[in-house]
Amino acid sequence: MEYRKIKDEDDGGGTVSDDIENPRGKGFPGPGVASVSNVPPREQAKWKCKAIVTLALTFLTSSQAILIVWSKRAGKYEYSVTTANFLVETLKCALSLAALARIWKNEGVTDDNKLSTTLDEVIVYPIPALLYLVKNLLQYYIFAYVDAPGYQILKNLNIISTGVLYRIILKKKLSEIQWAAFILLCAGCTTAQLNSRSDQVLQTPLPGWIMAIVMALLSGFAGVYTEAIIKKRPSRNINVQNFWLYIFGMAFNAVAILVQDFDAVMNKGFFHGYSTITTLMILNHALSGIAVSMVMKYADNIVKVYSTSVAMLLTAVVSVFLFGFNLTLAFFLGATVGLSALCREAAEIVNPASGCPDIVNSCVRRLFNSISFYSVPASTMGHIIRTGVGVRTQ
Amino acid sequence: MEYRKIKDEDDGGGTVSDDIENPRGKGFPGPGVASVSNVPPREQAKWKCKAIVTLALTFLTSSQAILIVWSKRAGKYEYSVTTANFLVETLKCALSLAALARIWKNEGVTDDNKLSTTLDEVIVYPIPALLYLVKNLLQYYIFAYVDAPGYQILKNLNIISTGVLYRIILKKKLSEIQWAAFILLCAGCTTAQLNSRSDQVLQTPLPGWIMAIVMALLSGFAGVYTEAIIKKRPSRNINVQNFWLYIFGMAFNAVAILVQDFDAVMNKGFFHGYSTITTLMILNHALSGIAVSMVMKYADNIVKVYSTSVAMLLTAVVSVFLFGFNLTLAFFLGATVGLSALCREAAEIVNPASGCPDIVNSCVRRLFNSISFYSVPASTMGHIIRTGVGVRTQ
Repeated sequence: MEYRKIKDEDDGGGTVSDDIENPRGKGFPGPGVASVSNVPPREQAKWKCKAIVTLALTFLTSSQAILIVWSKRAGKYEYSVTTANFLVETLKCALSLAALARIWKNEGVTDDNKLSTTLDEVIVYPIPALLYLVKNLLQYYIFAYVDAPGYQILKNLNIISTGVLYRIILKKKLSEIQWAAFILLCAGCTTAQLNSRSDQVLQTPLPGWIMAIVMALLSGFAGVYTEAIIKKRPSRNINVQNFWLYIFGMAFNAVAILVQDFDAVMNKGFFHGYSTITTLMILNHALSGIAVSMVMKYADNIVKVYSTSVAMLLTAVVSVFLFGFNLTLAFFLGATVGLSALCREAAEIVNPASGCPDIVNSCVRRLFNSISFYSVPASTMGHIIRTGVGVRTQ
Repeated sequence: MEYRKIKDEDDGGGTVSDDIENPRGKGFPGPGVASVSNVPPREQAKWKCKAIVTLALTFLTSSQAILIVWSKRAGKYEYSVTTANFLVETLKCALSLAALARIWKNEGVTDDNKLSTTLDEVIVYPIPALLYLVKNLLQYYIFAYVDAPGYQILKNLNIISTGVLYRIILKKKLSEIQWAAFILLCAGCTTAQLNSRSDQVLQTPLPGWIMAIVMALLSGFAGVYTEAIIKKRPSRNINVQNFWLYIFGMAFNAVAILVQDFDAVMNKGFFHGYSTITTLMILNHALSGIAVSMVMKYADNIVKVYSTSVAMLLTAVVSVFLFGFNLTLAFFLGATVGLSALCREAAEIVNPASGCPDIVNSCVRRLFNSISFYSVPASTMGHIIRTGVGVRTQ
């Protein structure tokens, strides 16, 4: 298959493949940089890019969950969800075009940033959207077997499925330590979400389990396939790639409006029931979507999984201050296990060879060695959360 | 302090110090052994000894917990606990003497196996018993702050305190991986014991927390101190060391009978209320006590902690079949995390250099590598349990 071409392209430690956007040679450090690090500036720039998109995704995902809790507190959803999804895709498309317009103005139109494309390139772009569509349809049926909190627990299977599909489809090997960390991350996130009724999940009938596993595989496949599409041509401008991803997203959501909410939109109007929170949520979802794309381009699905998991834990902690939630003992235990997994993963991937500046690395190593634990960069600690579970309202 | 002499005596990978009991040279493999392993037979014998005592401790600890559940089902304790403890110590003393008698008959009396001792050697033996006494007295007071299931949860602090005191008192370094595994083991065991009322532990008032920490430190200190005493003179016969440990145990328990149950024993007799289960429990406690001593001699406190933790998990699983208990989701998650910690520790300590036979090592590596996880010997997987928590009766 075509997307297997990307196999092993970034075995050098970093996860970003070679790119003509930065033509400097690999072994040629820029002047004045040697004092900070002996790593070529190109590697440093990659590391910086990776760190920024990871932090952005973490921040946006956690604020997304907080907005959801906020909107639930403010009352029921009065707007049509399909129109909101359509607007999210439209906004992402518009932002990608705006970024492209700026690039065209500064750098001129090149082969890598031109919008026009071939059928060969564009044919794979609707696939992730289709996979998500099938997954979302299945979502309606799984609730016949599990309740919503149980579904939240089962969703942690995504972590394992992403790891498995990442290995199979992208042909990238995860070390034994990375696998163990993934299993721990899954166990930790699930533990953090435990509540007094969680044991009901174990009584899920077989069709429920099968659906949960199929959904996890669809979701993992969509994520890994998106990474494959985006990394297939590393020099291609990410905004063009995003434009084609989102234009199909718009199309699918337009169909969804026609099928599901046509009458409501005709009678009450497209924007009926929109509030400030709705607007903020649309803005947040659009930016999160772009952040996910950026993580796929400059990092990978593994980083995405850690980022959203850390975001889940962060949301829970922030909810204590914002909404007066209580943290459960299970949350503390799960967070300990999840953060331990994160530290192990970070220790595997962060080292000066990966472009991480020496100064960050040495500061962090000193900090963590002093408590006899892992060496991990402070920036990587800034990950965490999913939705506000594992917390109990007073 | 005197016991610090043992520092770094066994840095060579194994935890058993040099011993004149086996006078063969380190680099001299016996004939015909090379086909199984290139490790000297002395190292192999040590490894075997370590494996056997570890498995024995795991088996005895898990059956101990099962006997407790069984005795609770059979009704209330009708016997006096102090007399039972006295009998446990007496039995251990008698077994040590019986073993010594056999050794004297076969090998004659030597400096290492003679019972008579110096004040210098014997003065430290009552200290572990005294520490446990103080801890047991504190136990009465902590129940003013937490309930019994809450206390079970807090007891997992023992894992951390043992690691910290092992490092401080025995001056043995644990690697970062080993520390992380210890933290995971603690989180995993606690998770496995979670139930719907566990969150009450978080509301424990400060004096309760302080007492729990002091008790964990006392318990950890007693364990580490016992190891220090037993390993101080590696060539000294373990049965002599046990005899002196248990004779003080007998003395302390005799005092306890006088103070606490004197009237009951006088009126109803020493053996009032004893049943078959009581007898089995006394037998089990005596053998477990000897197994703990053996683990201190031939392995260490770290192995003891893993062994008893694995025993806790095993008990829960066995209780499903014996008593029809249901395993909770928290149990599965905690067991996953706990076993992951065990695998990491095992991967750290099990290698051919430690005396583990090549054939075991290679079989196990093949097995575990095939599921992309850790290399760990099957025998080490045979650890597990504490008391039957994390299970819910139907």
